[in-house]
Amino acid sequence: MKVALIGLGSVGRGVATMIAKKDLGLTITGIADSKTGLIDSNGIGITEVLAAKRTTGKCGDPGITAPDVIKKADYDALVEVTPTDALSGEPATGYMKTALNRKKHVVTSNKGPVALHYKELRALAEKKGVAFRYEATVAGAIPIMHTLEHGLAGNEILALYGVLNGTCNFILTRMADEGLTYEQALMEAREMGYAEADPTYDVQGIDAAIKLVILANTIWGNGMKLADVDRTGIDLLTADALRLAEEGGCTIRLIAEANPKKNLFRVSPRIIGKTHPLVTEGTLNALTLETDMAKEITLIGRGAGSVETASAIIGDLLFIRDCHVQRA
Amino acid sequence: MKVALIGLGSVGRGVATMIAKKDLGLTITGIADSKTGLIDSNGIGITEVLAAKRTTGKCGDPGITAPDVIKKADYDALVEVTPTDALSGEPATGYMKTALNRKKHVVTSNKGPVALHYKELRALAEKKGVAFRYEATVAGAIPIMHTLEHGLAGNEILALYGVLNGTCNFILTRMADEGLTYEQALMEAREMGYAEADPTYDVQGIDAAIKLVILANTIWGNGMKLADVDRTGIDLLTADALRLAEEGGCTIRLIAEANPKKNLFRVSPRIIGKTHPLVTEGTLNALTLETDMAKEITLIGRGAGSVETASAIIGDLLFIRDCHVQRA
Repeated sequence: MKVALIGLGSVGRGVATMIAKKDLGLTITGIADSKTGLIDSNGIGITEVLAAKRTTGKCGDPGITAPDVIKKADYDALVEVTPTDALSGEPATGYMKTALNRKKHVVTSNKGPVALHYKELRALAEKKGVAFRYEATVAGAIPIMHTLEHGLAGNEILALYGVLNGTCNFILTRMADEGLTYEQALMEAREMGYAEADPTYDVQGIDAAIKLVILANTIWGNGMKLADVDRTGIDLLTADALRLAEEGGCTIRLIAEANPKKNLFRVSPRIIGKTHPLVTEGTLNALTLETDMAKEITLIGRGAGSVETASAIIGDLLFIRDCHVQRA
Repeated sequence: MKVALIGLGSVGRGVATMIAKKDLGLTITGIADSKTGLIDSNGIGITEVLAAKRTTGKCGDPGITAPDVIKKADYDALVEVTPTDALSGEPATGYMKTALNRKKHVVTSNKGPVALHYKELRALAEKKGVAFRYEATVAGAIPIMHTLEHGLAGNEILALYGVLNGTCNFILTRMADEGLTYEQALMEAREMGYAEADPTYDVQGIDAAIKLVILANTIWGNGMKLADVDRTGIDLLTADALRLAEEGGCTIRLIAEANPKKNLFRVSPRIIGKTHPLVTEGTLNALTLETDMAKEITLIGRGAGSVETASAIIGDLLFIRDCHVQRA
């Protein structure tokens, strides 16, 4: 199976490294970062490209752009892992549409396009008879979409509750364990590389809400948008609040929850028993699905990381190779 | 898709009830309990059969046996959910072979045949171009096999640790929470219907070891047998041991673990931090998979129950319908 890889940040490098390292039957025939690109229908030498990227900051030819690769390269599946733009979803949405119109499968880790244009992208993929997969957009390495699609096939998903932002979980864990203030824990998260210089997106629950939107659209097809999510961040939480929760055998976590029957779509700090499966330490993500047959199923794992996210991308590619392609 | 259902105990009734209740495109064309059977290629009226089973203890015609249904009915997939025989795997193994030889898919919750004859059944299914699926054999409703097969496709599974026996988890939870002795907690488990009159199979770790064998064969194809598992039960644990663990912020769980690089295949009571994801309450099951890309992924859910186990069976049937059949 031939793959075009667009984006060579942390996730893209993880995908390229794993494809080069493992014998998965995947060949990269087109690659692009924000400034340069390469096309070779016989397969690109990934090790050399990654070395060039490390030393020069460029992966290929300045005369070849990402749109060139998407329009001209010979590939079966586009892996779109450029930085997310949560407001416009561009240029990633345009990239994906171009590939889908060429009847190429699309696999992405890009939350913006999926949260903003799910219905349109899904419909276009179906019309063209190709796959549109986005396991990596929610909770990194945790195979949530595969679980919804196959593991729990036949179940009605009644509700879900999740810890979908590792940065907030780290901050809350440190506030609880060490009695730190929010500001102290945030500073520590920045030092560890878990929080951006501007942490708004994470600590105000926007990132978790975007993931909730993606899950809700996937499960219930309800056209949910970011503005439909009630949202409270963790930035006003005090060390006292954590201490009080701890004294009652509980702790506080930023929980994203959806329950369509109650018309409840919310991201907010919640007091939760310390032995609850959703209470995990550090940057872990966790999701509980409430279903009619299987009852509660909880999944816990890494929500971010280069190779961890590559695991989700590669899982999608192999699923397309093994199940979708033969079906056509 | 036409289904033959063999076995009308708790799991079989759950499967039949859910197929009748939900519009899944599944039709039961053959059904048998231990004494009677029914065959109708136009579809059997499940509601009536379940009512008859409740009132008379029989599902059909005493002139029709399970082998008759398997050999003669018109079906695409056999659902084999008769009681497990961990020593011989019979008569279930024979039932499955008959169906596979007829080029029928097989879905089972029956641990004995899978633990004893995995390689042979898998090879026969492959030779005949049909599916052999057994999600329900390990950890009930938790979609472990789907996760291994697709969600974590491309990952190397390095090791696994699991709480795979709900009876033991219930007993240990009650000993820890209430300071009960093993005998007191076992009695409570019996009263709740979580333990058999003879609890040997559960409390000596045999059930968990059988599930470990199934997982090991699935993941590593290493021909593991029950006798290869180092096994210690929970029946000699004292209330003191639990209390000491609790004082150190830990608890005790019966952990099934496999690590082929260390040649470690073991079921034993282990001291474990109370905030570890594997520590769940009551009869829940949990499994952590240690992988090269996704790192640790933990799945938690119901390990038993009529409808919960039916969820796994139906997930397998729908996977065959959506992915396997089209591939052929």
